[in-house]
Amino acid sequence: MSDQSSQQRTGAIEDAGLEEKCIEKEIVFAGRMLRMDRDRIRLPNGAEATREVVRHPGAVGILPFKGDELLLVRQYRYPIQQAILEIPAGKLEPGEEPLVCAERELREETGYRGTLEHLVSIYTTPGFTDEIIHLYKATDLVWDPLQADEDEFLNVVNTPWVQAKEKALSGELNDAKTMLAIILLAGKER
Amino acid sequence: MSDQSSQQRTGAIEDAGLEEKCIEKEIVFAGRMLRMDRDRIRLPNGAEATREVVRHPGAVGILPFKGDELLLVRQYRYPIQQAILEIPAGKLEPGEEPLVCAERELREETGYRGTLEHLVSIYTTPGFTDEIIHLYKATDLVWDPLQADEDEFLNVVNTPWVQAKEKALSGELNDAKTMLAIILLAGKER
Repeated sequence: MSDQSSQQRTGAIEDAGLEEKCIEKEIVFAGRMLRMDRDRIRLPNGAEATREVVRHPGAVGILPFKGDELLLVRQYRYPIQQAILEIPAGKLEPGEEPLVCAERELREETGYRGTLEHLVSIYTTPGFTDEIIHLYKATDLVWDPLQADEDEFLNVVNTPWVQAKEKALSGELNDAKTMLAIILLAGKER
Repeated sequence: MSDQSSQQRTGAIEDAGLEEKCIEKEIVFAGRMLRMDRDRIRLPNGAEATREVVRHPGAVGILPFKGDELLLVRQYRYPIQQAILEIPAGKLEPGEEPLVCAERELREETGYRGTLEHLVSIYTTPGFTDEIIHLYKATDLVWDPLQADEDEFLNVVNTPWVQAKEKALSGELNDAKTMLAIILLAGKER
């Protein structure tokens, strides 16, 4: 990359030599939603190490606009033992295209169908999982509900766009994809 | 919340009734870095379900400024099989305070000690993990390196702040914490 200067540090090596190669794969848990792998790998310096990796099917998140309100969902997140405010989101079904998944999740979680525009795709936490979330903006919302998953309970919260931006910038929202999607779109507005 | 209107949907219930209660805990994998739980839970409607949860020690991410350059690190991320550009980051040691962790990781990954300011703390992907990342801004950098982890290889990449913001907004960067930290700080500058 000609626009970046690279600075070597103790133990650091050329960019091309950063790669970690799989020596042996081991699936240590295969669940309904997640798989945990523990792979033996070869480090760039030739030594061996292990990597614990959570395999995820990928997901979508949607910023749905109804006039100047953003539709957020309030949902209990068992891993963190609290209900939080997020953009509508959900996992890809096997073989499902992200756009089709975004249409489905939007209808399931808010009841609306809309015109979808892809914003960006992000790795949520690439240190330990391959999860990628494809983020969309939805406009022209039309009521066309789909039955949601039977183990999913949520409340739709209509939030003025100005307020959503404030809550994202202040950290009152604390879900990464939600904050990122809102602040990203706000940044593109300028 | 008086500033939000809540809209009920099929299957949705009052906010107070969103909670999922643990019936039985099962640890299905306990690794060096991650633990996978599969808990049997009680849904708000009384039915039972299971939740697969990745338990994580928590982490920090740092935006280190050297003049008008941001110090990013280029690192191979085994889960996604590619080297990507990120802010310096790392996991909390057992019992370690986030601020102490941020100081340590900054010295290990960039070689600098700095003045740290907490920005926000974010849940990376609360649908399946309790991982929280505490984000800091670092200024007044002084050279004071610490030996990095022996299985960690990275290159420091000095990136002009203007370019970092462009790369985050365009999606050329694709690590969620990195994009969020940069765009958040850019949003606060206005």
